[in-house]
Amino acid sequence: MKEKKALVVGAGLVGALWAVFLAKRGYDVSVYEQRGDMRQAGYSGGRSINLAMSDRGWKAVEKAGIKEKLASVAIPMYGRMMHPVSGELVFQPYGKENQAIYSVSRGGLNLELLNIAASFPNVELQFDQKCRRFEPSEGAVWFEGPDRQLKKVEAPIIFGVDGAFSSIRNSLQRLPRFNYSQSYLDYGYKELNIPPNEDGSHRLEKNALHIWPRGQFMLIGLPNIDGSFTCTLFLPFDGSEAAFDRLDSDEAVMAFFQQYFPDAIPLMPALLEDFRRNPASALVTVRCSPWHYQDKVLLLGDAAHAIVPFFGQGMNAGFEDCTILDALIDDFDGDWARIAPAFSANRISDGNAIAELALRNFIEMRDLVADPRFLLRQKIAARLHEKHASFLPTYSMVTFSNIPYSQALQAADAQNVLFERILALPDIEQTWENNEQIEGVFRKWQAELL
Amino acid sequence: MKEKKALVVGAGLVGALWAVFLAKRGYDVSVYEQRGDMRQAGYSGGRSINLAMSDRGWKAVEKAGIKEKLASVAIPMYGRMMHPVSGELVFQPYGKENQAIYSVSRGGLNLELLNIAASFPNVELQFDQKCRRFEPSEGAVWFEGPDRQLKKVEAPIIFGVDGAFSSIRNSLQRLPRFNYSQSYLDYGYKELNIPPNEDGSHRLEKNALHIWPRGQFMLIGLPNIDGSFTCTLFLPFDGSEAAFDRLDSDEAVMAFFQQYFPDAIPLMPALLEDFRRNPASALVTVRCSPWHYQDKVLLLGDAAHAIVPFFGQGMNAGFEDCTILDALIDDFDGDWARIAPAFSANRISDGNAIAELALRNFIEMRDLVADPRFLLRQKIAARLHEKHASFLPTYSMVTFSNIPYSQALQAADAQNVLFERILALPDIEQTWENNEQIEGVFRKWQAELL
Repeated sequence: MKEKKALVVGAGLVGALWAVFLAKRGYDVSVYEQRGDMRQAGYSGGRSINLAMSDRGWKAVEKAGIKEKLASVAIPMYGRMMHPVSGELVFQPYGKENQAIYSVSRGGLNLELLNIAASFPNVELQFDQKCRRFEPSEGAVWFEGPDRQLKKVEAPIIFGVDGAFSSIRNSLQRLPRFNYSQSYLDYGYKELNIPPNEDGSHRLEKNALHIWPRGQFMLIGLPNIDGSFTCTLFLPFDGSEAAFDRLDSDEAVMAFFQQYFPDAIPLMPALLEDFRRNPASALVTVRCSPWHYQDKVLLLGDAAHAIVPFFGQGMNAGFEDCTILDALIDDFDGDWARIAPAFSANRISDGNAIAELALRNFIEMRDLVADPRFLLRQKIAARLHEKHASFLPTYSMVTFSNIPYSQALQAADAQNVLFERILALPDIEQTWENNEQIEGVFRKWQAELL
Repeated sequence: MKEKKALVVGAGLVGALWAVFLAKRGYDVSVYEQRGDMRQAGYSGGRSINLAMSDRGWKAVEKAGIKEKLASVAIPMYGRMMHPVSGELVFQPYGKENQAIYSVSRGGLNLELLNIAASFPNVELQFDQKCRRFEPSEGAVWFEGPDRQLKKVEAPIIFGVDGAFSSIRNSLQRLPRFNYSQSYLDYGYKELNIPPNEDGSHRLEKNALHIWPRGQFMLIGLPNIDGSFTCTLFLPFDGSEAAFDRLDSDEAVMAFFQQYFPDAIPLMPALLEDFRRNPASALVTVRCSPWHYQDKVLLLGDAAHAIVPFFGQGMNAGFEDCTILDALIDDFDGDWARIAPAFSANRISDGNAIAELALRNFIEMRDLVADPRFLLRQKIAARLHEKHASFLPTYSMVTFSNIPYSQALQAADAQNVLFERILALPDIEQTWENNEQIEGVFRKWQAELL
């Protein structure tokens, strides 16, 4: 058996959590992070989207024994609050009563995880260490420190948890038979902000994820514990009337908001400053295979499977990596030569599935949540779910279960067939609450699946 | 107008040819190549597949004014010669009479192109210069020379022609919104050799591409001017009975050849040495977008679109890049700020199309060329082509025309529909030579396309 020493490259959300898992198993863990120590320097915002922790994330932090500490910074959101251009807000629950996803700020959560990791005596944290590359011939990682000198760090097992633009993965990419893709949307996102009321309360319903769906683009807002909302505008970079490259002056920004998000303007006193200061960032999907190199390196989190944020599953998928990898350590008795290929074999199809589901959910969020047929479908799905415990709508399967993402994707495809049939029933808009044919269509569809 | 200076990174086939194009336009061209100067050191073989020059390739070298010089090293192949496990050889022509593809050795052709490029006084060749990266902030490329020192090279316009594992592309990959994928087949290839007879003649029919199709794998052989054949075995790396990882001893290799390629054994006296010495190399498809960075960098050849070798179009596609880019220089009067995006817009869909066609042709070569239905389809296609000048079989469109690859791919899909219908005609196997229904099906299909 190898020495119980591990190198974790990256102290973001997943890296910090995985360090906790390893520490609890008695590994001596070195964590190297390219940014400065946010416990001293604070977290630099301006390009983050708030996170929505759901069941898979909670399961992982519970397994790590740190669920209580994290629950105190999370705000439950029981559904989507839709903001039309004019008229009444519409609330659409995410699941059954009391089912919620939980808004957490990336910075706050990361800080909390770092503090927990640092509290283990067998965890060593190193900051300002830029990972330059993994060198397969040496089994070592080269870092550039603040003195700009290169330093070689060796460990029996190395975890590349260095995010969507992972240097470790970039090194693996040069090895034969490593499959890789990075694919960008033509959309960018920009962080905006709704501050709290003067009394510290929230200016909008606190326990909801707010969406302003506008067909080809959208604005969303997630609550923070300080009473503010972190908002994100998703918009094409260019190529259409409504695009970032057209919003090149305060006047253009204000006219755009007046046309599409009039109710947001009074909520955002710093709109123009935020808009000028915060960049329009790109949205990438990263897929690769395998996620391991021999018994030396494993990729976790965004380094293995960066996805677009529209299903709120980026962090949850990364945290679930930890749950699954931790179980494999037991299954294979700590033998990384067997754990590493098993992790690739077990988990890559799930990573690809949530990548696909997240891309599909973009269409749903920006477009379909404002579509009456889609809303009808959601209501019928909820009704079927109440009646048949075994029937889980796709959103619930992804968000409120631990069913493998690849199964959820298969189910999503099958459910598309089901709802095509149901929505083709005559007068379904008027009759859905008491239409007995729905049950017949459902039973036939269910029988076909077996 | 910028200074007429260009940096070409890579002196492989496409890099050397593109240097000639630029030199003829009066550019001062610096060519940097990571390997040593093959004019002195010779070409190191052992992992090359012979090349088949076809119309697109010839058009480019003709435009560069060097067709005659290259024609002397090329051997016409008028069709495929199929080798069954036992029984008669079957010859299948590629096109009409006198249509051929031309076997050239990679090393010989590269040497010839380098000599031609070096003959221009405004071309400077630098060898042993490993490209480390393109630095967008400097608009410069960093090379590591034989003294291991890093050197910065600047130029108004830089061409990344540094192959499937391009360093220039790897630098672009780190920029936002650069889409990239590399995807490996589970197959490897190994170079083998059939030497000439003692009198210098070829041991097999000289003017054919020899194929030993075996369903899940195959052997091919292409003639050289010295009387030898360069052969390539394409085989799964692992995961099946017939796979490289099973061929781990002389006995296993010999038993494998006795079972599947018995007629090749007497032709290959050095089979076992070749097998031991030459590596099993991987087969990658690379796609990316865009192929340019501002007005500074353009990717050409394998750096932009590495493809699998099964359509014999890798070099031809790269040479056609030169033809097309050269025409764009005229169209936009040498203004790279307009040429570069036009090249991406014009050419990427063609790169993706030939990548797809090459993957499909793998199935055809290893499998279908031994399938009677496929052979029947080929014969009917040839007959239709004779009768209707406008009907070009896919293979001819790709190989014997300059129709954009993207159009050839569309036509391939449409032709699949046509031949599905024709092969469904009753008793087509017996009646195809005089079946009047074929004409009816063809006319109906053609009318649908309009």
